[in-house]
Amino acid sequence: MKEKLMKMLEKREDEMIEIRRYLHENPELSFKEDKTAAYIADFYKDKDVDLVTDVGNGQGIVVTIKGGKQGKTVALRADFDALPITEEADVPYKSKNEGVMHACGHDAHTAYLLVLADCLIQLKDNIHGTVKIIHQHAEEVPPGGAKSIVEAGFLEDVNAIFGIHVLPMAPAGTVGYHSGYSFNGRAYFKLRIQASGGHGSSPHKANDAIVAGSYFVTAAQTVVSRRVDPLNAGVVTIGSFDGKGSFNVIKDSIELEGDIRFSNKETREVIDKEFHRIVNGLEELFGVTCELTYKHDYPPLYNDPELTAFVADTLKEVKDKDIKEVKEFPKMAPSDDFAYYLETVPGSYFYIGCTPKGVEEPYFNHHPKFNIDEDAILVAAKSVGHIVCSYLSVD
Amino acid sequence: MKEKLMKMLEKREDEMIEIRRYLHENPELSFKEDKTAAYIADFYKDKDVDLVTDVGNGQGIVVTIKGGKQGKTVALRADFDALPITEEADVPYKSKNEGVMHACGHDAHTAYLLVLADCLIQLKDNIHGTVKIIHQHAEEVPPGGAKSIVEAGFLEDVNAIFGIHVLPMAPAGTVGYHSGYSFNGRAYFKLRIQASGGHGSSPHKANDAIVAGSYFVTAAQTVVSRRVDPLNAGVVTIGSFDGKGSFNVIKDSIELEGDIRFSNKETREVIDKEFHRIVNGLEELFGVTCELTYKHDYPPLYNDPELTAFVADTLKEVKDKDIKEVKEFPKMAPSDDFAYYLETVPGSYFYIGCTPKGVEEPYFNHHPKFNIDEDAILVAAKSVGHIVCSYLSVD
Amino acid sequence: MKEKLMKMLEKREDEMIEIRRYLHENPELSFKEDKTAAYIADFYKDKDVDLVTDVGNGQGIVVTIKGGKQGKTVALRADFDALPITEEADVPYKSKNEGVMHACGHDAHTAYLLVLADCLIQLKDNIHGTVKIIHQHAEEVPPGGAKSIVEAGFLEDVNAIFGIHVLPMAPAGTVGYHSGYSFNGRAYFKLRIQASGGHGSSPHKANDAIVAGSYFVTAAQTVVSRRVDPLNAGVVTIGSFDGKGSFNVIKDSIELEGDIRFSNKETREVIDKEFHRIVNGLEELFGVTCELTYKHDYPPLYNDPELTAFVADTLKEVKDKDIKEVKEFPKMAPSDDFAYYLETVPGSYFYIGCTPKGVEEPYFNHHPKFNIDEDAILVAAKSVGHIVCSYLSVD
Amino acid sequence: MKEKLMKMLEKREDEMIEIRRYLHENPELSFKEDKTAAYIADFYKDKDVDLVTDVGNGQGIVVTIKGGKQGKTVALRADFDALPITEEADVPYKSKNEGVMHACGHDAHTAYLLVLADCLIQLKDNIHGTVKIIHQHAEEVPPGGAKSIVEAGFLEDVNAIFGIHVLPMAPAGTVGYHSGYSFNGRAYFKLRIQASGGHGSSPHKANDAIVAGSYFVTAAQTVVSRRVDPLNAGVVTIGSFDGKGSFNVIKDSIELEGDIRFSNKETREVIDKEFHRIVNGLEELFGVTCELTYKHDYPPLYNDPELTAFVADTLKEVKDKDIKEVKEFPKMAPSDDFAYYLETVPGSYFYIGCTPKGVEEPYFNHHPKFNIDEDAILVAAKSVGHIVCSYLSVD
Repeated sequence: MKEKLMKMLEKREDEMIEIRRYLHENPELSFKEDKTAAYIADFYKDKDVDLVTDVGNGQGIVVTIKGGKQGKTVALRADFDALPITEEADVPYKSKNEGVMHACGHDAHTAYLLVLADCLIQLKDNIHGTVKIIHQHAEEVPPGGAKSIVEAGFLEDVNAIFGIHVLPMAPAGTVGYHSGYSFNGRAYFKLRIQASGGHGSSPHKANDAIVAGSYFVTAAQTVVSRRVDPLNAGVVTIGSFDGKGSFNVIKDSIELEGDIRFSNKETREVIDKEFHRIVNGLEELFGVTCELTYKHDYPPLYNDPELTAFVADTLKEVKDKDIKEVKEFPKMAPSDDFAYYLETVPGSYFYIGCTPKGVEEPYFNHHPKFNIDEDAILVAAKSVGHIVCSYLSVD
Repeated sequence: MKEKLMKMLEKREDEMIEIRRYLHENPELSFKEDKTAAYIADFYKDKDVDLVTDVGNGQGIVVTIKGGKQGKTVALRADFDALPITEEADVPYKSKNEGVMHACGHDAHTAYLLVLADCLIQLKDNIHGTVKIIHQHAEEVPPGGAKSIVEAGFLEDVNAIFGIHVLPMAPAGTVGYHSGYSFNGRAYFKLRIQASGGHGSSPHKANDAIVAGSYFVTAAQTVVSRRVDPLNAGVVTIGSFDGKGSFNVIKDSIELEGDIRFSNKETREVIDKEFHRIVNGLEELFGVTCELTYKHDYPPLYNDPELTAFVADTLKEVKDKDIKEVKEFPKMAPSDDFAYYLETVPGSYFYIGCTPKGVEEPYFNHHPKFNIDEDAILVAAKSVGHIVCSYLSVD
Repeated sequence: MKEKLMKMLEKREDEMIEIRRYLHENPELSFKEDKTAAYIADFYKDKDVDLVTDVGNGQGIVVTIKGGKQGKTVALRADFDALPITEEADVPYKSKNEGVMHACGHDAHTAYLLVLADCLIQLKDNIHGTVKIIHQHAEEVPPGGAKSIVEAGFLEDVNAIFGIHVLPMAPAGTVGYHSGYSFNGRAYFKLRIQASGGHGSSPHKANDAIVAGSYFVTAAQTVVSRRVDPLNAGVVTIGSFDGKGSFNVIKDSIELEGDIRFSNKETREVIDKEFHRIVNGLEELFGVTCELTYKHDYPPLYNDPELTAFVADTLKEVKDKDIKEVKEFPKMAPSDDFAYYLETVPGSYFYIGCTPKGVEEPYFNHHPKFNIDEDAILVAAKSVGHIVCSYLSVD
Repeated sequence: MKEKLMKMLEKREDEMIEIRRYLHENPELSFKEDKTAAYIADFYKDKDVDLVTDVGNGQGIVVTIKGGKQGKTVALRADFDALPITEEADVPYKSKNEGVMHACGHDAHTAYLLVLADCLIQLKDNIHGTVKIIHQHAEEVPPGGAKSIVEAGFLEDVNAIFGIHVLPMAPAGTVGYHSGYSFNGRAYFKLRIQASGGHGSSPHKANDAIVAGSYFVTAAQTVVSRRVDPLNAGVVTIGSFDGKGSFNVIKDSIELEGDIRFSNKETREVIDKEFHRIVNGLEELFGVTCELTYKHDYPPLYNDPELTAFVADTLKEVKDKDIKEVKEFPKMAPSDDFAYYLETVPGSYFYIGCTPKGVEEPYFNHHPKFNIDEDAILVAAKSVGHIVCSYLSVD
């Protein structure tokens, strides 16, 4: 069946590209993907599958393909939301939705998975087990769609999950993998420091919120410099220090906001604890009151070593003209809510090279000029196709 | 002549109060004192004096009263601008100019000086020397009016200058004095720190302006804590830390603004030098670019010890039922541009108690409920009258 | 009697100088003044006074001279301890006690007071009231002798106390005074910060005491820069940061020691409170344990304004060829345990100019080359003599 | 030949253990390994090899085994110095050299390599190429022996180098590998900050070295927290803050010492640059003079990915009862001067599990109770033997 599947995919490459271009021209922001979800649901109309829409906290769609024989259940996920970016890429299928752009490649993710799913539906009698197709909304904006899909129970009977992300770190034809912790997790904080104002000439009658906030920023550096294991990754960024006021009035309160990153759960715990400790210490140190909002967004993404080795070995061994190289990729600094699935069931999230042909320094994901080599879409479809066929037995 | 003058002043007390109330009802902001200046100029119309209007960088008025005999020249100054404060005092002559208020007593200063000047004009034949009456605009807003009046040369032939400020630290009848440095000087700064932005997850690709700014704030504390002589007064207040941004974007630049105070010139020099040093050091320390605006506003106000002793001794020795107590007052934290005159000629700036009768905790100058005991106006007129008579010989 | 006293003092000027030189050659450290105390006690042998030795926590001596008539009681104090300094002054009466020196002028203080006391004893029938002569040990080393003498009750029946200090800020013949707070008070602290050690390559397994200590030092700057009234004086000096260790071992504990100064009680309270607050905050901020020793040494010295005016006016009015000028001196940064007496009874501590003749930049007190113009001793004796005669009535 | 070699090694296992125990009983400190070097040289006496002693900056020994046929040259290194640690392990062959201990397993390294070398000498006719045996002195103390051996040219004709380290992270039978950067590099610094002293009560007359040093420590935190790529490892530890002084004297100078770690050259460059920048910035910031000693000790150790894959694949594929598992090990925080060889020629430094049997939480290298399972010695010999045979062709 595997060979048949590959041939089907090859034949439908143009269709995948068309779908991708349609989505690219019609991007929608996270949690607002009305038309995209309708388009996807429409794609499955009249197909012999179980389809659930409006899944989770948005418009997620889960399609269940029951194989002809008993077996394991494998889930595949593609995300379909776009970003609040005004496209600057010079392409004929440029975004028609001003200020919104598929700058992260989710259009390609969805395009390959729709066609792959359709092929699997056609071949399902030969499949031992079940394939769950997850078309996920809202990957870009916390809390994301993944968490709610997990909470809704869609992974309860799943044995393994796989997903891919297009990355212009390598040309189309290259597949990347990374075992263990692979994307950083992240948290968000907002800290309001309440002191008391006064006249600039009389500091002793006031309690200076800017001074307290500044010492906080310097003390917060020690979380990463002294508390996090140097072999792990941790980041504490204070992106906003809102302390605008009058030059001769001592500021009574300020507000800080920031972004926290961690490569694994141990580091998350360390940062959580030390950050809170410093906030508490600040209250006593300067006699101020701190109001802290501290939220976990996405966990660190952990690729199961066995299933990642399975992905790498499987793709290394297939003789497929479109899969030219399979190699380890480095850890990624960003975060992805695929991490929530991987907290629930083992799996692997891997990478599909997509550097546009002839480009030496490609624009990266989230750049207004981001673009992909569309050959990568077939590579994605085939790679995931191989994984499904090898993970579930097929005839 | 002295006794005559005192009697004239006593008789015209009601007039002084009326003038003060008129001014109180019609306050005008610094550098916008059109009507007030016209009112003052009108007061001198048809009087036998030399009057110059539109003096300095605003609408200052200088009136020169030449005495009948040769002698020294003494200057007297009263300021006439008001503050951007909405009056909350419950008085029948409340401000009619919404949002503007004579909350610093300049109405009283001008009222007493107009009447005193008029009396001196009438008695001028008995005066050995010259009296220069300076009705000064714009004391409240740097660069103030005083500096420009000095620069226009109006003090060139002056031997000594005196001025008073009403203060509710003591009841009407009390006169306060302080020898040497008496009001703090002040400077203003704006510091723009230019670093370079980036994504919150990748600090190594950016240069964090908030971090640089926060370390600056902590280092700036040492100017006062370690560089200023503890027996002098110095203040470095950073009143504004404008670093508002997005939580997950590393801030590329921030802007600080602040207020600097110093009790004497030595301290001003120390702070000037050390503040600039820290700004320069910051550039190297964090590889940022600093754009610093640093302006001297008002110098520290230095009361000539001899002339202050002259004021204190003169007023202690007069037997005047309205001048009940003459005593030392402490140093003042605020600033006053009378300091510019005292940089040019020796003199003394002293205090007229004005706590409203029956009030134990009076509202201070610049408070929306600030008010005075109007008895203080006569005390001011008589005190300055005594000083003039003793400083210049009178018949 | 006053004239008689002055003549007696003039005649005994050489004796005062001899006594001073003897004491100068035989200096003794605080709390070890055996010979000096014996010398003083011996001076009073066979005189008709009440003498108590071994007063307080050392070898203080209190001599009570009861006048012939009823009246108030006035106390006079001279301190007699020396400093652990090796004399470098080139004088014929150089210290014979290697490493110990009368570098603060206590030799002169004692010399004048012994002779003045003897004269008063001789004239006591003419005195209305009582004179208490306090020869005080151990001024230089906290807790000092003064506190214990107060606690022993020797000031219980005293109405006023006076004392002088020789200062080379003016020539012999000048007397200085300062009203209100005049010498800074001081406190001492030792802070041990206990964290936990570890290998330099693994900060996450340790808790770095040097980092905690350094942030403490930076935060402690805000006590003076933001908490103390700029018009008051406050100092927080961290004189010792004992964190020596191995370059690649994270330090488990450090010890800081320091010196705290304050110009008045309000400032003392502010510093006490804020310093403790920062120590407490540090414990939470970095998860360390702080062991703090914090001791008040000497209070700020407060000269009673009325009695200081009395001193100034009395000495300004006397026609005495040896008292050439009486003027205000500035506040002093150091501390003196005369402050303890002034916490108990009103009084005034004033200054006797002593710049050596012909010297433009004299060495100050506590310098190895400190020396005085011995003419100042008679000035001291006469000044204090005048004060006693005026404060108590004399015939 | 490979099978023959393995059998020879198995037969000589006891001899290896004996050698290891002899060395363990007779440890010598880095750069002082007289007897150890003599022992090793003696081992090769009368053997048909080229032997050079006193190699590099100490007593290194290089043995060259020329094979019977032409081929590549491979180098093998074992270090032989011990540590200044008093042994606390309860073993019959405990250190006889009080205060010195083979607590890092170099005794085992040398033991296996001596016997392996001897076997290779015996079989050299079958070897295509050359084996260079490097017995290296002084691995533990910078600048180490490796750098000087490289500089002496001993690697000029070498194609690849291999070495092993025993680690109690896994039982004997386990071989670990790590591709790319594997051990952190390190640098050392000493920073003298010269300011100017003064009396604790008068900070304005001094320049406080403790304050400058403390701000330095806080600013230095940003090197790791903001400048180093979070996915790399960087450490800046200030292990010593030598600022002990008197509580009431402002410190005129202090000395800091510290340890710097980095996982790769890029991070080393970043830290070098930023550390120097902060030192320079400090000079301006506080007007102090900084004297900085900054030395690179060991570079980060970079295992060639191809040769590491070669090691891993070779050992995974051999069917050897003693090599039970071959797996990836994590990055190591410490440093090893094997890094110098790997800067010069490609190679791989890998790990030999040695947890003592029955021990769950073994003492790690450098612990006074460190010990190994001696079975690991044969594993080391065989593993390296396999590598040599596969890297060079053998008959």
